[in-house]
Amino acid sequence: MSELKEMILEYGRRARVAARLLARTSTAQRNAGVCAMADALVEAEAEILAANQADVEQAAARGLSGALLERLTLSGARIHAMAAGVREVAALPDPVGELIRRWTRPNGLEISKVRVPIGVVGIIFESRPNVTSDAAVLCTKTANATILRGGSESIRSNLAIAAALSQGLARTGLPGDAIQLISVTEREAVRHLCEMDRYLDVIVPRGGKSLIEAVVGHARMPVIKHYDGICILYVDACAKPEMARDIVLNAKCQRPGVCNAVETVLVHRSALASFLSQTACALAAKGVELRCDPEALAAAERVPELAGKTVAASAADFQTEFLDLVLAIKVVGGLEEAILHIEENGSHHSDGIITEDAEAAERFLQEVDSATVYWNASTRFTDGGEFGFGAEIGISTDKLHARGPMALEELTTYKYQLRGSGQIRK
Amino acid sequence: MSELKEMILEYGRRARVAARLLARTSTAQRNAGVCAMADALVEAEAEILAANQADVEQAAARGLSGALLERLTLSGARIHAMAAGVREVAALPDPVGELIRRWTRPNGLEISKVRVPIGVVGIIFESRPNVTSDAAVLCTKTANATILRGGSESIRSNLAIAAALSQGLARTGLPGDAIQLISVTEREAVRHLCEMDRYLDVIVPRGGKSLIEAVVGHARMPVIKHYDGICILYVDACAKPEMARDIVLNAKCQRPGVCNAVETVLVHRSALASFLSQTACALAAKGVELRCDPEALAAAERVPELAGKTVAASAADFQTEFLDLVLAIKVVGGLEEAILHIEENGSHHSDGIITEDAEAAERFLQEVDSATVYWNASTRFTDGGEFGFGAEIGISTDKLHARGPMALEELTTYKYQLRGSGQIRK
Repeated sequence: MSELKEMILEYGRRARVAARLLARTSTAQRNAGVCAMADALVEAEAEILAANQADVEQAAARGLSGALLERLTLSGARIHAMAAGVREVAALPDPVGELIRRWTRPNGLEISKVRVPIGVVGIIFESRPNVTSDAAVLCTKTANATILRGGSESIRSNLAIAAALSQGLARTGLPGDAIQLISVTEREAVRHLCEMDRYLDVIVPRGGKSLIEAVVGHARMPVIKHYDGICILYVDACAKPEMARDIVLNAKCQRPGVCNAVETVLVHRSALASFLSQTACALAAKGVELRCDPEALAAAERVPELAGKTVAASAADFQTEFLDLVLAIKVVGGLEEAILHIEENGSHHSDGIITEDAEAAERFLQEVDSATVYWNASTRFTDGGEFGFGAEIGISTDKLHARGPMALEELTTYKYQLRGSGQIRK
Repeated sequence: MSELKEMILEYGRRARVAARLLARTSTAQRNAGVCAMADALVEAEAEILAANQADVEQAAARGLSGALLERLTLSGARIHAMAAGVREVAALPDPVGELIRRWTRPNGLEISKVRVPIGVVGIIFESRPNVTSDAAVLCTKTANATILRGGSESIRSNLAIAAALSQGLARTGLPGDAIQLISVTEREAVRHLCEMDRYLDVIVPRGGKSLIEAVVGHARMPVIKHYDGICILYVDACAKPEMARDIVLNAKCQRPGVCNAVETVLVHRSALASFLSQTACALAAKGVELRCDPEALAAAERVPELAGKTVAASAADFQTEFLDLVLAIKVVGGLEEAILHIEENGSHHSDGIITEDAEAAERFLQEVDSATVYWNASTRFTDGGEFGFGAEIGISTDKLHARGPMALEELTTYKYQLRGSGQIRK
């Protein structure tokens, strides 16, 4: 066995032991542990900033710049914000131990379905060091041990943050090994993690498509992932033009680089003229490039304000997550066509209908098979915080276990407890 | 692309279309479809029996015999039993469409979490042809399309059964492609299925370890699986000796070849003498081979009735699923040691404690991290029917999505429907 593989297995063994200890703790004990993690973060400010400075200098020397360098850079204020985020999680309700259902069988056996921790959660992420504390605190709160693997450019910062969190937790008598961050940057470490199904109950990759593809290809345990966010809005014949304008503008422009921003708008043929004169013009004024299907393009040519703002869409544009001020526009003949387009081109993340026709809206909510489906609201609400979950570990585009915003409850599973009085099977 | 791969992809495309159509149907429509599937099975009795005879003859010519040949062989009565099983599922409550939770956000957005079908379910199984109808009916009831892949020795029977079910369903106007069975027996077909994550939302392998390993190794979609059933009972110091005897006997002997049969018994040191004189003797009388750790072995030598019935256990015996009249016995000093043994040697399927000490029992139920944990009952109750689920597609030893008996509810997922009045994100 390679030295690296043995090293990764050792993280696994330690995490498994820590998970067992953590599973026996009370909500109050874990909340105290989480608060101590926040304290320890603040106390370690100097060490974390020094480690971060070394990361930033190396990244700058390697040519990283602009937004990427900014995302990597920590400050005292950011560390305090991180600690505040940790304390907020301590205050959230604890899903662990919840009695989901209880029933009694005719033979007197009492069956309880109860919510329990998953065990050991692997999280692989890129870039932003604050993911270390977000992920660690959500896992600790739900009595899971976590093995974290961050990007190489922030390795020193991540290690300093994880060390502080682990020491804080240990101070309250909880197992420090519940929070471990892999200290090596070799790519092979990810493969070994993915193969370690004996110790890792689930793996959550957060990052670009190539990272996710690699994890899916190697993982022997369940993976919860987030692929594309190709979100689609359908402006129905019965949409209020102003509401359509406000929602599309918000969904496209409020933060174009995120997964729940809209990428395609489908417009009902009879709403096209008002859509172009109101929504399209407002989008163009915000600097959005409009990639139109032939029908929308021809109609746009008759709107003077749109001159030079539209281009012909390619087929690929309707299956692209632009993450930018670009929007694909297609004209459809009705609800059925819109739903079919979404099913075949969207990524089943967040899709919506804008209409005053309640019947059409309910059909849309029923038939579109996406993690979140909207009627008359911006797709930007697909978010743990906006849902009222208090925190999130990501948004799942998978259908199993966790779908949509993934928060504390999604970091739990269940077991059945059967209480009897000597029952045997006939 | 190989011809075989293209063929498998075509199953996927058809299943996806069928799943979309099925998702739009009502409970009543699907129940009518399921009843028509039962009728069609009965009507196709002659074709199914002829196909089965050809399978049986070929299997016999290849040297299959005894219980295996018996499992493969169908009769008119078995087909009627299959049809009756299908009708029973029609009568069960439908989980699809259930409102799991609904809440309203401060901005007025109403969020509903509703239960929906998974989509397309792949099921890979070996040997028994009745799995074809069990799996197909559970999937149809929950509005999922299914792609089935059975063992090569029962291919003709499976195809005849699947054809009848599909035709029955189509007769009521529901999509016949919702039930497809792969008509080729090449091993490569499984790999293509496993890679087809665009069309298959989940894959459920039912069979031996090598099949499951192959599926886990290749699958790009979630897998729900059943590995070993190394079930363990702990006879505590405060166990009633007669209850311990009855439960252990039932758990070991009632049907030794199944996954929820007990394979190891841990005995508290102070209960050892009564365990040997009552339970061990009763087991020996039933022909059970007792593989004992040194302490139990030494004590057994002082019990005349156990002469020649005990052997020394190897370390491997405590991690083996015997599926036979063999039981490993180990002496422990208390609850803590028992729990640790179970965590490190069991398969987290079904484990139990026999005791009159409620505090010890509750600690066991809390701390043993298995799909089902028992207090004073036989492990043989881990079963969809015994749980009151009406039917089951298998028992999951996974922790995510489905854990323990997997029935109708576990064939569903959820989505969020958000109803607004023009909300945009600030």
